[in-house]
Amino acid sequence: MTVRVAVNGYGTIGKRVADAVALQPDMKLVGVAKTRPSYEASRAVAKGYPLYLAADGSKEAFEKVGLPVAGQVADLLREVDVVVDAAPDKVGRENARLYQAAGIRAIFQGGEKPDVAEVSFNALANYEAARGKHTVRVVSCNTTGLSRAAAVLTSRWSVENWEATIVRRAADPAETKRGPINGILPTFQLPSHHGLDVRTVFPKLPITTAAVVVPTTLMHVHVNHVRFATPPRNVAEMLAAFRSTPRFHLFGSWEGVDGTPQVMEFARDRGLGRNDFMENALWENGAQLDGKDAYFFQGIHQESIVIPETVDAIRAMFDLAPDGAHSIAITDRTLGIPPP
Amino acid sequence: MTVRVAVNGYGTIGKRVADAVALQPDMKLVGVAKTRPSYEASRAVAKGYPLYLAADGSKEAFEKVGLPVAGQVADLLREVDVVVDAAPDKVGRENARLYQAAGIRAIFQGGEKPDVAEVSFNALANYEAARGKHTVRVVSCNTTGLSRAAAVLTSRWSVENWEATIVRRAADPAETKRGPINGILPTFQLPSHHGLDVRTVFPKLPITTAAVVVPTTLMHVHVNHVRFATPPRNVAEMLAAFRSTPRFHLFGSWEGVDGTPQVMEFARDRGLGRNDFMENALWENGAQLDGKDAYFFQGIHQESIVIPETVDAIRAMFDLAPDGAHSIAITDRTLGIPPP
Amino acid sequence: MTVRVAVNGYGTIGKRVADAVALQPDMKLVGVAKTRPSYEASRAVAKGYPLYLAADGSKEAFEKVGLPVAGQVADLLREVDVVVDAAPDKVGRENARLYQAAGIRAIFQGGEKPDVAEVSFNALANYEAARGKHTVRVVSCNTTGLSRAAAVLTSRWSVENWEATIVRRAADPAETKRGPINGILPTFQLPSHHGLDVRTVFPKLPITTAAVVVPTTLMHVHVNHVRFATPPRNVAEMLAAFRSTPRFHLFGSWEGVDGTPQVMEFARDRGLGRNDFMENALWENGAQLDGKDAYFFQGIHQESIVIPETVDAIRAMFDLAPDGAHSIAITDRTLGIPPP
Amino acid sequence: MTVRVAVNGYGTIGKRVADAVALQPDMKLVGVAKTRPSYEASRAVAKGYPLYLAADGSKEAFEKVGLPVAGQVADLLREVDVVVDAAPDKVGRENARLYQAAGIRAIFQGGEKPDVAEVSFNALANYEAARGKHTVRVVSCNTTGLSRAAAVLTSRWSVENWEATIVRRAADPAETKRGPINGILPTFQLPSHHGLDVRTVFPKLPITTAAVVVPTTLMHVHVNHVRFATPPRNVAEMLAAFRSTPRFHLFGSWEGVDGTPQVMEFARDRGLGRNDFMENALWENGAQLDGKDAYFFQGIHQESIVIPETVDAIRAMFDLAPDGAHSIAITDRTLGIPPP
Repeated sequence: MTVRVAVNGYGTIGKRVADAVALQPDMKLVGVAKTRPSYEASRAVAKGYPLYLAADGSKEAFEKVGLPVAGQVADLLREVDVVVDAAPDKVGRENARLYQAAGIRAIFQGGEKPDVAEVSFNALANYEAARGKHTVRVVSCNTTGLSRAAAVLTSRWSVENWEATIVRRAADPAETKRGPINGILPTFQLPSHHGLDVRTVFPKLPITTAAVVVPTTLMHVHVNHVRFATPPRNVAEMLAAFRSTPRFHLFGSWEGVDGTPQVMEFARDRGLGRNDFMENALWENGAQLDGKDAYFFQGIHQESIVIPETVDAIRAMFDLAPDGAHSIAITDRTLGIPPP
Repeated sequence: MTVRVAVNGYGTIGKRVADAVALQPDMKLVGVAKTRPSYEASRAVAKGYPLYLAADGSKEAFEKVGLPVAGQVADLLREVDVVVDAAPDKVGRENARLYQAAGIRAIFQGGEKPDVAEVSFNALANYEAARGKHTVRVVSCNTTGLSRAAAVLTSRWSVENWEATIVRRAADPAETKRGPINGILPTFQLPSHHGLDVRTVFPKLPITTAAVVVPTTLMHVHVNHVRFATPPRNVAEMLAAFRSTPRFHLFGSWEGVDGTPQVMEFARDRGLGRNDFMENALWENGAQLDGKDAYFFQGIHQESIVIPETVDAIRAMFDLAPDGAHSIAITDRTLGIPPP
Repeated sequence: MTVRVAVNGYGTIGKRVADAVALQPDMKLVGVAKTRPSYEASRAVAKGYPLYLAADGSKEAFEKVGLPVAGQVADLLREVDVVVDAAPDKVGRENARLYQAAGIRAIFQGGEKPDVAEVSFNALANYEAARGKHTVRVVSCNTTGLSRAAAVLTSRWSVENWEATIVRRAADPAETKRGPINGILPTFQLPSHHGLDVRTVFPKLPITTAAVVVPTTLMHVHVNHVRFATPPRNVAEMLAAFRSTPRFHLFGSWEGVDGTPQVMEFARDRGLGRNDFMENALWENGAQLDGKDAYFFQGIHQESIVIPETVDAIRAMFDLAPDGAHSIAITDRTLGIPPP
Repeated sequence: MTVRVAVNGYGTIGKRVADAVALQPDMKLVGVAKTRPSYEASRAVAKGYPLYLAADGSKEAFEKVGLPVAGQVADLLREVDVVVDAAPDKVGRENARLYQAAGIRAIFQGGEKPDVAEVSFNALANYEAARGKHTVRVVSCNTTGLSRAAAVLTSRWSVENWEATIVRRAADPAETKRGPINGILPTFQLPSHHGLDVRTVFPKLPITTAAVVVPTTLMHVHVNHVRFATPPRNVAEMLAAFRSTPRFHLFGSWEGVDGTPQVMEFARDRGLGRNDFMENALWENGAQLDGKDAYFFQGIHQESIVIPETVDAIRAMFDLAPDGAHSIAITDRTLGIPPP
């Protein structure tokens, strides 16, 4: 079976989902929907993706600049089995009615509230929960990063307490209207919603989060302190658990990767699409175990980390793979993410 | 008694200490020592501070640009009762021998290791411990901020566990050679040294810290999660404790102080010297209490927060005040820090 | 005569104008008008400025947080001789009708189009033109900086051509919502409007400007290339002309002032209100003369440079001084700007 | 003939030159030399490039982390016809003796002084001048950008005067130790060296440049004002000249490319190696013609713009192509740069 997929919204997430779906052997990208013409739309056309008008888009606006329009988003929805909603936060919920009316399945982003879908999803954590579902929410970048780490740790050891500070990038690289330019903005929600959101995937995880926004565009960084009830024997054992899991990358201390700028430079040297870094980035010298207390940093590439999860979500919904491990293997091979 | 004070080093900290000492009724600023002429040195001269040659400074270099030199640092040391060492990190330890040879007392900065002095000091926390001492180390900006908060909380409630993430500014405003420009750098020491350093003031405080560096010049931000054994009754009680303590400033949620940039703007509107902000900055809407768990952010102005503490340290060493509260009151009144 | 002054709008410019007016011997600050309560409003109250409700402000919102409101802006306008409009760009034009209805004089900012007022003003350049006028527009920060430099150069030598590139700060320090965080944005208007705006003050100046926006909050920098018909004899003569003019500050090459961050640090050490820098900042080692071609950089503190000009504009409108030089001398003495 | 190429230095430029050479049908990458192991070195190994020890590198340091070393740089030099020096500024000159001793040809970077080589080179401008040469200097990123534009304009119209302000990025993306974080630094050399450097390629071009450094990592921006003796008929004609020339890319005003961040995002969507942008980036709405006066902005990707020029330089030195146009066509096709 080849699942026919639409992507509604063609910004940071939508364009990446489109590329990823186009690479899958068991899926077909039928088209993408966008509101306004732009350099991003022109690249979609250059890649041969049929372009549909999202929401209140104007056909004339596209055609005036030589970008052919294949139809309205409603036309697109009629041609597919599932739509990946990549609209701005809160718009996904409004779009849900369209998808239901079209009688198709839908994947929503983590910016929507959990009740937008039957299940909140992370491939390593709860692939089975999405099997056969009609609506799935792929959790946000930060929640995905934490859920992956939780999948590694909780499956091997018992976690008693988890404190995470989320140091958030303030804007994506091309969002030139967003600041701050110089300063730190605390997120005035304590604990922050991230911990609650992780519990949509790991209902009983004793995790508490807080967040600040800082003037960078590259990646988020999580500062983690995990207290185990039954800990790993040593930090090497903990690191080995991460290293042997898909979608984790550990940088050695000799590599000179001092922070997120070098992670991004490594990604450029490696050369996946858009130089994305879809793994959790960990540092060997940024991890410690002291008795029952473990500490580790992880870098989260906000633009791309949810992309492989979205592909897996489609596979789970349509029962295209025997289990999560098989789906992850296919996704990662096609996207170029190295296996553990 | 008027204590005669020298300041050795005239950068970010030294110039502020000089101004602060010059405002004290019981102290006299005898002179400041600087290595090279600069706009900062010219302001010292404009303020009438006798300027001495620090370390390997060249008298000709100063005189060539019209800045009169009063002598060598050794000359200055002969004229004073105490020197505040404001040299770069690690240089203070080397200078210690000079001070000892001159037979004078000395205050060192938090960038030196604790054993550089008889006691590590914070005015709210352990004023008495510095009384009569010959050498005192005023702890660093981050440790000062945490120690102040610890003084408030531990004197009222029992703290079971404290997690703090230190989100550090990467450079001071005029340090144009330091980066990063775009990115987050984890501090690869876990837990970070800050927690250990707080224990030079509060030996038994169960605090654990971790740190990241971010591209801003204004202030550090601490993300705190305190678990109490016996908690405040509610968040208002906890905030009232901070509000009633000197050197804390709470911003109301209606004030529109979204982060460190507005704290600094408030400081500019308020108009203390250099628009410094010598208090811990807290936000009413950046604090929460959930059972035994308290959360709060605090902003720490790395350039100025240790200045009032340094003044108090001198007062303690020379027994100029009956107790810490009296010293703090004099210091804050002279520096313009509003009383609680 | 004491001119009674209102300030309508209490943001970056308004709060500075209020402070400056309050310091003038021949003016009285009657009140300031603000739309919403904030930390800035609370500082106005702390300084004893009567606070009026601007535009659609709500009295309840202010009183709920303990900020007393003296009345509506219309009440304020009835009590004054002149209002300084410090509303956001384009709002000043709308406000003009209010002022006319109240029968008072008005000063507008450079963000309004020139025809909002009878004359566009710069104190060094055309003080006389504003004498007795009912409406005056104080030109913007960049235009003020260029006009001051033009006043120096055109009064001594003949300028054949002037090219200026305006490297603009993207946001003021506390404007945390504005970007970009990492990138350069060309201003897609070529030549930029700044050159035209300078000609509202110097109608025949052969100046051409272009602009880019860069991720900093501190100051603008102008990169100037002036071709003289009859040039100064040498760069020292040109620099002496700047040095001997009010509202210019030259940094010596020995001072270590590498750029705008050190200019701001110098301003903090100097200690005028809010650590403002109301002069054009020039660098001795950032100026050159090669035959008829002169080059110089100047830093422009966008927040404060128009403040002394606004005070002078009031003085010109009400004929409070015999000429511009006298007005400038009073303004600068009261604001703490050093004389040449 | 297949020219055997070594790359000495494997940082920002070296790694890109290596990749580019490896893609050429008439060249063979024999090896790269690097001083220290790092994530960049590990990617070289992953790509199968033989790794040699540059300068004072330690074989043990590489082998300890599993990176095989093929030999010393001297060994590498014996195996090649030409070396591309990609060492830090000023080191290339020192290396020149090594290359001479090895009897091989050498290409130097623009960070070296012009007399390091027989000719300073830009492919569009003076391909013929490098033909058969033993040493060639590929001019720096900014000079390359200006030379390309000069090649377009001077070959069609007569330029009377050219003013360019170079707004420079302060650091490359992964150079986390470099600032400034917040501020603008004028370059205290007036006019700046860039204009002189362009004249190593266009000896009589009447160009004058000045530069500032700003806190961004992405691209430089040039602000150009060209006065023609004989101008284009209109701006469309000028833009058509750029558009029809290799290595220029014009963004339409409808594309939403507001500045360098969107140029880089476009590059990521396009997907050349490392998401480089090797063309001069121009904006249709960032160009104007007013009589004889033309204005245009151009963005220059400092990391990659000299890479195609370096490949062409090799081709010229070894006479591998009938002329520059042929070489450019091969280079651009292999690197993925779209033809005009």
